Amino acid sequence: MSNPTATLLISCPDQRGLVAKIANFIYANGGNIIHADQHTDFTTGIFLTRIEWQLQGFNLPRDVIAPAFEAIAKPLNINWQLHFSDHIPKIAIWVTKQDHCLLDLLWRQQAKELPATIPLIISNHEDLRPIAEQFKLDFHYFPITKENKIEQENCQLELLKKSEIDLVVLAKYMQVLTPEFITKFPQIINIHHSFLPAFAGANPYQRAYERGVKIIGATGHYVTADLDEGPIIAQEVVHISHRDTVHDLIRKGKDLERLVLARAVRLHIQNRVLVYGNRTVVFE
Amino acid sequence: MSNPTATLLISCPDQRGLVAKIANFIYANGGNIIHADQHTDFTTGIFLTRIEWQLQGFNLPRDVIAPAFEAIAKPLNINWQLHFSDHIPKIAIWVTKQDHCLLDLLWRQQAKELPATIPLIISNHEDLRPIAEQFKLDFHYFPITKENKIEQENCQLELLKKSEIDLVVLAKYMQVLTPEFITKFPQIINIHHSFLPAFAGANPYQRAYERGVKIIGATGHYVTADLDEGPIIAQEVVHISHRDTVHDLIRKGKDLERLVLARAVRLHIQNRVLVYGNRTVVFE
Amino acid sequence: MSNPTATLLISCPDQRGLVAKIANFIYANGGNIIHADQHTDFTTGIFLTRIEWQLQGFNLPRDVIAPAFEAIAKPLNINWQLHFSDHIPKIAIWVTKQDHCLLDLLWRQQAKELPATIPLIISNHEDLRPIAEQFKLDFHYFPITKENKIEQENCQLELLKKSEIDLVVLAKYMQVLTPEFITKFPQIINIHHSFLPAFAGANPYQRAYERGVKIIGATGHYVTADLDEGPIIAQEVVHISHRDTVHDLIRKGKDLERLVLARAVRLHIQNRVLVYGNRTVVFE
Amino acid sequence: MSNPTATLLISCPDQRGLVAKIANFIYANGGNIIHADQHTDFTTGIFLTRIEWQLQGFNLPRDVIAPAFEAIAKPLNINWQLHFSDHIPKIAIWVTKQDHCLLDLLWRQQAKELPATIPLIISNHEDLRPIAEQFKLDFHYFPITKENKIEQENCQLELLKKSEIDLVVLAKYMQVLTPEFITKFPQIINIHHSFLPAFAGANPYQRAYERGVKIIGATGHYVTADLDEGPIIAQEVVHISHRDTVHDLIRKGKDLERLVLARAVRLHIQNRVLVYGNRTVVFE
Repeated sequence: MSNPTATLLISCPDQRGLVAKIANFIYANGGNIIHADQHTDFTTGIFLTRIEWQLQGFNLPRDVIAPAFEAIAKPLNINWQLHFSDHIPKIAIWVTKQDHCLLDLLWRQQAKELPATIPLIISNHEDLRPIAEQFKLDFHYFPITKENKIEQENCQLELLKKSEIDLVVLAKYMQVLTPEFITKFPQIINIHHSFLPAFAGANPYQRAYERGVKIIGATGHYVTADLDEGPIIAQEVVHISHRDTVHDLIRKGKDLERLVLARAVRLHIQNRVLVYGNRTVVFE
Repeated sequence: MSNPTATLLISCPDQRGLVAKIANFIYANGGNIIHADQHTDFTTGIFLTRIEWQLQGFNLPRDVIAPAFEAIAKPLNINWQLHFSDHIPKIAIWVTKQDHCLLDLLWRQQAKELPATIPLIISNHEDLRPIAEQFKLDFHYFPITKENKIEQENCQLELLKKSEIDLVVLAKYMQVLTPEFITKFPQIINIHHSFLPAFAGANPYQRAYERGVKIIGATGHYVTADLDEGPIIAQEVVHISHRDTVHDLIRKGKDLERLVLARAVRLHIQNRVLVYGNRTVVFE
Repeated sequence: MSNPTATLLISCPDQRGLVAKIANFIYANGGNIIHADQHTDFTTGIFLTRIEWQLQGFNLPRDVIAPAFEAIAKPLNINWQLHFSDHIPKIAIWVTKQDHCLLDLLWRQQAKELPATIPLIISNHEDLRPIAEQFKLDFHYFPITKENKIEQENCQLELLKKSEIDLVVLAKYMQVLTPEFITKFPQIINIHHSFLPAFAGANPYQRAYERGVKIIGATGHYVTADLDEGPIIAQEVVHISHRDTVHDLIRKGKDLERLVLARAVRLHIQNRVLVYGNRTVVFE
Repeated sequence: MSNPTATLLISCPDQRGLVAKIANFIYANGGNIIHADQHTDFTTGIFLTRIEWQLQGFNLPRDVIAPAFEAIAKPLNINWQLHFSDHIPKIAIWVTKQDHCLLDLLWRQQAKELPATIPLIISNHEDLRPIAEQFKLDFHYFPITKENKIEQENCQLELLKKSEIDLVVLAKYMQVLTPEFITKFPQIINIHHSFLPAFAGANPYQRAYERGVKIIGATGHYVTADLDEGPIIAQEVVHISHRDTVHDLIRKGKDLERLVLARAVRLHIQNRVLVYGNRTVVFE
């Protein structure tokens, strides 16, 4: 699939003729739809769709597609995003001391599982700098204290802007971002090391052990101002038994965290996730 | 969702404008699409879609929809089926001696999980007649020998026809149907008690035990003349350990068989399954 | 395995020689151990074991085994239970209006998956009486109001005692039992329709839908005075997507509830579950 | 658990008193058993157990344990292995061109999930030499042709011997070893990229795609002279749908391969796997 494609992600109030109107827009301009998926949430009356078509043979120049579609979208009250498959998004990975999610994302990026570049790594500790060096990536150290947090976040925001970052991935970053930061840079995916909403907050493995659950999980979600309450993109679980110590839960959990975070990031950068309310539609 | 809907299941050579043309047909006639899903198999160049719309407000009378759509379909070389949600399909369940799949399907039908009626049960043994009586269903006993098989199948075909059966479900029916039968009545779903293609044929649990696998499965598939080779609709698995005897595999397998068969039947009667080649597309 | 067996379930402070002393007790009296499993919880220093041996050839008469073992157990500070495999436990199933867990348990009991009898069904509604009649089981109707709850529970306790019930199974019984009841009859297993501790309390499926989780679950647990906080025996989960309505979650959840409750009950009546603190060891 | 332990892995004909005799041997010499698990295969009459005890306070010197236990084992016809937890096994990883399993094992070894050292990497291609260099490991290149295979295997055997390798892990090594090699070095674990016995042999993902299965898997097994027929240690699966291309199956399969191979290797080097016949008992 070396031909570039365009993808529209759309949400709007449900109404008659939406599929026809959107498909006609593409067909009338000579586009060949290669993927289309839709969902109607009948409880809220919201229509959501993802539609992808080949740019080869499409009669509209790229910079005209957005204004042309807006003419259709406006009367239908459509929220939409337009993405081109040959725009490679830039990811900043934020870490603290644990390396498993970072290494996993870097490996997948190299193995071409993640169509993105990872130009920088941000951390509140120096521990993982050697990994950045090994992969020849920029590593930025921002130690965080209560006093300097706002200031550091401003520096971080500037760095993200300067590096034209599209997505921040919190790959075991053990600091809470301020609501101000999230408002200014809302494209953030986090991995939480529990099956949310169970064991939100700190030390989920310890608490899972104490509660004596028979299954543990991990959750990849968008970050919102409400800690651990953002829209969930992906979750995965694994069975445990009384033989598993907290140490074993952590080991098993690391595998879940790697898989779930990579999955959430891949779905996002393939433009397969639509958020509405506090929920996601994932067009796989 | 008490409003009746129409569903088109479509497969055809991939070509520009298919989504637009089909959506326009529905929109132009006043239909409101509530579900649409599509898939393009790029290796074979086949486009497949399932599209469902509300009949309320649709301008074409029911008996005109098919010929009207055929006018669009023919030049595009489209294979299509049209289903109305208020046509309740009739299922004949075929069993031998084991009751778990039969009971499960009957319970789900009563619990309104399966939008179908089950007017008759066919068996080559008398063992499960009491269940039919308890549920007040017709039970037809067709003992099968090498000598009488063809003759009995002809009687069975007649019975299916007379009872206007839409779907035969082999719910642990331990006889092989002849290719002639399958040609004459091709809508047959079977549950195979292994994770096909592993352990096709007889005694899969015994063979799984002997091979020492760590996972067993069950497979719901359409029946074709090639035994255990038909298009797969649904599969499910469960972990086992050295502690599980063949008896335990059978017990665990029964749970899988119940779930997988019910799932395959539900997907089929909701018109969510499209067969192409020896594969299925399942629009969930 | 038609030969009757004896099973010891043991928990005590960890100390040197426990395995040897217990195994010697059985070997010295001519017993043949067919299953032995142990677990040491190093965080609390507790040793737990399950040991099962054939009674055929065992030199101690049944009524002497307990006092003989107590002589060994006392100095070691051992808590123990002794079970004979040919004692078939009696289960009372408590229900409200939903039939799926009840039917599932009754089927499994008939299919000999559950080595128990189910002599009576208790309900706070009349809805499921026909099922009891169909299976020829006693059905006892105890309508519950705030005013009569204590009184009814006393009647229920008397009935359990009179019927020599070993285990109460709350198979979608939608009433909370009083702490007094639980103290007097502590052998109670409940099915909770969520992946505890997520969505403890009422309406878990609705709340799971609203939270937008991608996985739902069910939990089989012992009942304690702390609602939904008792020791967990078994949990199972299933993936869901944005396409699943609350109605679908309930449908999928019912399959989980059936499986998990049956599993928890089977493990309990096979004497495979040991509770310590608020946790369980499950010797499978 | 910084205290070293000893572990006995035992298999023998089932007979009265085995647990007592083995436990007595340890207790009589002052050992504290921290894990004990047993399994009896009643179809073959074989008793298998894994028993682990602390060496601290154990009265027998290490070099006396084996002969002392042999005195007990011989009359009982016991096959046994004795392992000390502070003997760190040496693993040679064999690869061809794919890096995911190799990297995963190296990460886990660094993260202390695998209590082993990995002193050398063997490959029939040069592609992965840079990874070896990055991790500062010996990399040995043995190009294989029909003509030189035997000769190269002899060199490889010599290298394994010289490096005192305990376990060979075929981490996507795309060459078949000769029966002679396997006889001379039988401790070999392989990852097969299918859910064996389904799709044994070459190109399993392509064949899984063509068969239209709904689940794919991976299998970690010991290598025997019968290709893909060795005793299975671990298996894992993942659901797929019609949307998954062969490319997606390969991507999803790589995650399974990483997890399953790491799991099989970990279980082996923790001395948790006992082979009997063509089956394994895995004491987890």
